[in-house]
Amino acid sequence: MTSVTVDLSGEHLTLVTSNSRRRFHAIWLRDNAGDPETRAPGNGQRLIAVRDIPADTRIDDADLKGNLLEVRFAPEGKVVGYDLGWLEAHAYDTDQPRQRGCTARSVEVWDAQLMGNLPVGDYMELSRNDAALSQWLGLVTKYGFGKVVNGPIEDGALFKIVDLFGYVRETNYGRHFDVRTEVNPTNLAFTGLGLQAHTDNPYRDPVPTLQVLYCLESSAAGGENMVVDGFAAAKRLREENEAYFDVLADHCARFEYASATGVCLTSRRPMIELAPDGELIAVRFNNRSLSAITDVPFDKMATYYAAYRRFGEIIDDTAMEITFRLNPGEAFLVDNTRVLHARKGYSGEGTRWLQGCYADKDGLRSTYDALCHAQALEAAE
Amino acid sequence: MTSVTVDLSGEHLTLVTSNSRRRFHAIWLRDNAGDPETRAPGNGQRLIAVRDIPADTRIDDADLKGNLLEVRFAPEGKVVGYDLGWLEAHAYDTDQPRQRGCTARSVEVWDAQLMGNLPVGDYMELSRNDAALSQWLGLVTKYGFGKVVNGPIEDGALFKIVDLFGYVRETNYGRHFDVRTEVNPTNLAFTGLGLQAHTDNPYRDPVPTLQVLYCLESSAAGGENMVVDGFAAAKRLREENEAYFDVLADHCARFEYASATGVCLTSRRPMIELAPDGELIAVRFNNRSLSAITDVPFDKMATYYAAYRRFGEIIDDTAMEITFRLNPGEAFLVDNTRVLHARKGYSGEGTRWLQGCYADKDGLRSTYDALCHAQALEAAE
Repeated sequence: MTSVTVDLSGEHLTLVTSNSRRRFHAIWLRDNAGDPETRAPGNGQRLIAVRDIPADTRIDDADLKGNLLEVRFAPEGKVVGYDLGWLEAHAYDTDQPRQRGCTARSVEVWDAQLMGNLPVGDYMELSRNDAALSQWLGLVTKYGFGKVVNGPIEDGALFKIVDLFGYVRETNYGRHFDVRTEVNPTNLAFTGLGLQAHTDNPYRDPVPTLQVLYCLESSAAGGENMVVDGFAAAKRLREENEAYFDVLADHCARFEYASATGVCLTSRRPMIELAPDGELIAVRFNNRSLSAITDVPFDKMATYYAAYRRFGEIIDDTAMEITFRLNPGEAFLVDNTRVLHARKGYSGEGTRWLQGCYADKDGLRSTYDALCHAQALEAAE
Repeated sequence: MTSVTVDLSGEHLTLVTSNSRRRFHAIWLRDNAGDPETRAPGNGQRLIAVRDIPADTRIDDADLKGNLLEVRFAPEGKVVGYDLGWLEAHAYDTDQPRQRGCTARSVEVWDAQLMGNLPVGDYMELSRNDAALSQWLGLVTKYGFGKVVNGPIEDGALFKIVDLFGYVRETNYGRHFDVRTEVNPTNLAFTGLGLQAHTDNPYRDPVPTLQVLYCLESSAAGGENMVVDGFAAAKRLREENEAYFDVLADHCARFEYASATGVCLTSRRPMIELAPDGELIAVRFNNRSLSAITDVPFDKMATYYAAYRRFGEIIDDTAMEITFRLNPGEAFLVDNTRVLHARKGYSGEGTRWLQGCYADKDGLRSTYDALCHAQALEAAE
């Protein structure tokens, strides 16, 4: 039995169902009204600003009508209906005990045990079948990376991967870059050296949030790819030593990349970035482009370096990593704010040619969410 | 007289000059060595990871040789020289008393009084003259916005502005979007309505960090553009009421934009975003796309709404705003993480046609810094 009572002051109401007891403020309800004078019916955007809502807004009366809560606001005298399901889904009168290093509900952290269950999509299916695309994007959202197989073997094929969900982020490296051995490399990525697991371009702000690496040739020995879940590594660091986690989260690192050709990129962001409530939102880890750390006070620098070292050891632990080899026509996509990638060294014999590009997560998440909504609508019909 | 002493443990050394006393840790010095085995001479990237530096690294000996500090590290037995000027510039043994809401040194906050001193660049000069470009980019870095005049009046001219410093961020709105009155608007921007000062696309993560709005036609009455410094507004909010500032910085807001055409963009970020040390790094403010706030506990929601209301009042205060009219061939660029923009309503008579696009600050800052370095080198020759 659902019931509603209005506080004497009219400042909030209390909605009690068999499962929950939720309070909602008058100002919150008024601001979230869905009537056509408050929200544009076509595009759903709010037509009013908070300045258009009287500061002394209060609840005059509230009634339940089936699945609808009807609220009359003073001084406007306006009556607005709210769906009870919507209210429960957006209730904020809840326990919100989040601890530092928690992750969003959509995220599942992983280690080497995921190896048997790699998130893989077949290019032809992904490009033709919304259900397959939605499933693969769901796995990428959950694990922060995904492989694609059976793609075309042609220059620029990586853009076809990005076209599945979003838009390329062009940078000073171009719309894409070629990863193969160069004689005078502008970047160590363009050598045969092994590279420690890292996130790309931490010296860029905003960092590119997605990276695609697409294989076109692969006959050199070595050069396997590895991925490591940076969120899993950060959580493990916190479990082992909370002070280590805190020192990396509470101080900005600095990153830099400067080339001779008019490029001078610098950033100031922590290695472990948290939302105000402690949710892990990004990891930055890259020994090649870390510049001098200057935002850590002297008495914390020894701890900072000990924490940075331990974070690196966890990242290097084979129990954390997934290794695979890309064959021509295969690619992988990483959430560059979360999943680190690495490459084993390779010899000069044979060839290894990858193409890489950046993109952003907003497009991927939007495509995934829109596909999910469309499927939910279909299922309901 | 400069002197150096090594701590008994070898964990750090102390460098004393006539002006300062700075301690540096052995591990920090070793990690920041600039020798060719540590840093690649061509591209400056670090060749080693912290795992390659012994955990028990300590200073065996340190000597001054002119402008160089020479350090011998144990157990490696490696000797590395450090420029004293570089050490002072990167010293971390300093007072680091930052308060919440501080801004980077490169930033100067402003209000309506900047009106007489608008950061304006002439397109022909900017495109031909590095000194003019560098000066204008410096003003944009300082104030978070800049105008351009005397640009070409042609479809797509806005891309020529972006070409001056960086790269377009393509989104679901395309590489660019047209801002003129539409009959069935997908976005309220495409109506004649006035729009409260806002940052663009707060529902996107990462948010586009720059926006260009370029005028191609302007004969309608009204439609003036306004800009407001969001950092100045946030600082003023904090001066007036620290609890208001804190509640907006300490809790994530949520933003959303969903259209009928497969787009469903959502984000969870605070209206006032701070670095871990309290530096203001972003403001998000947009009444149209704010969705239900669910990350503020019940007992703080009334304060949250009061703070949001007051923040909006400060943003609306004419003492904060700069208003100007764009004529055909004129454009403005805003740092969309800092400066809010607004538009006054305009009538259906006459025409008003703007083109807009997004770009990112990394390219702008890189171009500016590289130009400054090149100028410094020239001056030194």
